[in-house]
Amino acid sequence: MKQAKVRLYVEQPLAKGQSVPLDRDQAHYLFGVMRMGPGDPVLLFNGQDGEWRCIVAKAGKRAGELVCEEQTKPLQMPPDLWLVFAPIKKARTDFIVEKAAEMGAARIMPVQTAFTNSERIRQDRLQAHAVEAAEQCGGTYVPEVTDLQKLDRLLSDWPEDRQLMFCDEAEVGSAKRLGSASGDKWAILIGPEGGFSDAERARLHAHPNAHVVALGPRILRADTAAVAAMALWQQALGDWK
Amino acid sequence: MKQAKVRLYVEQPLAKGQSVPLDRDQAHYLFGVMRMGPGDPVLLFNGQDGEWRCIVAKAGKRAGELVCEEQTKPLQMPPDLWLVFAPIKKARTDFIVEKAAEMGAARIMPVQTAFTNSERIRQDRLQAHAVEAAEQCGGTYVPEVTDLQKLDRLLSDWPEDRQLMFCDEAEVGSAKRLGSASGDKWAILIGPEGGFSDAERARLHAHPNAHVVALGPRILRADTAAVAAMALWQQALGDWK
Repeated sequence: MKQAKVRLYVEQPLAKGQSVPLDRDQAHYLFGVMRMGPGDPVLLFNGQDGEWRCIVAKAGKRAGELVCEEQTKPLQMPPDLWLVFAPIKKARTDFIVEKAAEMGAARIMPVQTAFTNSERIRQDRLQAHAVEAAEQCGGTYVPEVTDLQKLDRLLSDWPEDRQLMFCDEAEVGSAKRLGSASGDKWAILIGPEGGFSDAERARLHAHPNAHVVALGPRILRADTAAVAAMALWQQALGDWK
Repeated sequence: MKQAKVRLYVEQPLAKGQSVPLDRDQAHYLFGVMRMGPGDPVLLFNGQDGEWRCIVAKAGKRAGELVCEEQTKPLQMPPDLWLVFAPIKKARTDFIVEKAAEMGAARIMPVQTAFTNSERIRQDRLQAHAVEAAEQCGGTYVPEVTDLQKLDRLLSDWPEDRQLMFCDEAEVGSAKRLGSASGDKWAILIGPEGGFSDAERARLHAHPNAHVVALGPRILRADTAAVAAMALWQQALGDWK
C-alpha cells in the first residue's frame, strides 16, 4: 500500500466513504506543490474523528476531492492542560505556539501582564501555527489559541477545579512535587521576559490552586521555559507518564 | 549603586582591579548602541573567574577599557552534560545551540547521522550563539560547540564512563528511571528529523551505556526534543534537582 506523504487538518467530518472537498489552498498544496494526483493517499484529521487515510478522487488547480478509506488512528485528546503565556517577539511567540501543540497542550492562551509589551496578537496566524504543528507531530487534535486577555481578569475568573503551575525564576520549588498534586485540569503559566510585577507575583503566590515550580539556576527565555515546563508536567501528570 | 544593564562574555582574566581592554565590536556595542560612558557598570564573565561588576574607565569609538570592581557571582559550572544532535535547518540549529546553553549543557556536539542532510556547519556562528545565550541567561560558563563529526565515529570512541540518554520516538522508556542511573558524566543524543537508520538504532540499543527514553506520544521536532530531554535530565540528575 502506498505510504501517505502528506498529513492535513481539515474542518469537514471524516468517516468511511465520506468525500472531502478541498479548498483552493489545499488543492494548490497537494496538486501544485506536492505533485499528487488521483489515487494518491493523504492522511486527514479534523480534531474529532481521529486520523483517516484518504485517496485523491479529483485533482484540479483550484479545487479537488478526497474520499476517506480507513481510520488510521483514533482521536487522542491531549491532557486537559492550558498553556498561559505572555507574548514576546513575533518569532518566539510563534515558536511557543508551535511547541505547545507538539508538547500536547489542549489550549494556548496569550495573556497581557503588567510587563508585557504586546497590546494585541494575530490570533488567526497563531492558530494556523498550531494547525501546522499538529499536522507535523502526528497528533489528532489541534489546540485552540484564544485571543489576548488580561492576566488579572483570567485570574479573577479562574475555575475552582483547575490547578496552576506557575514558573517563577525567583523560586526554588521542584516539579517533582507535582506528582502528588491532585486534579486532572491544569494550566502552566509562563511569565514575560521582564518577569512578573510584585503585585502579580503576590497574587499568584496567594492563589489557592497555585503550584510554584523553579526551572533551574539559569534564567530561561520564555520560549525555553514553556517547553521545559511542559516536559516536566507531561512526565509528572500528563500523557508522558 | 547603579545597576548594570549589560552582561558580556570576554576572554581576558578577571580579578579585582584588573583592567579589561575592549575590542572594536564591544566598544561599539557599549558606547555606540547602549550609549554608556565612563563610570557606568557592566557585568563581565569569562567562563573561568565567575561574574564581575566592572566600571567603564575609557570609552572610545573603536576601543575602550573596563576595570573590575567586585565579583558578583562565583564560577558555576554546569553539570557534565553533552548535547549531541544532528543539525537541521539553520534557524532550528541556532535555536538548539541557544537552548542548550540556557538549559545548562557543558558541551554542544553536532553530529552527522545516516539521515542528516548537513555536510558542514558554521562552528564559529554556532559558538557565537552559545556566547549570546550565556550572556542572556546569567550563566558564568559558555559551552563549547564542537565541529561536525560522524555519529559512528563518536560512538566508536565513546568514553567508558559516560552515560548516554538516547531519545527514540519508537520507544516507551520513561525518563523517571534515569534517577536511579549511576555516573555523573552524561550525554543526550537527539535524532535527526528523518529518525535514525535501522543500523544506527541497533547500535545505540546495544550500547552498554545507553538509556533509552521516550518523549511522549507525539513526534517532536528535534529542537523541541532537545529542550524537553534536557529538562527531564536536569530534573532527574542535573542542577535542577
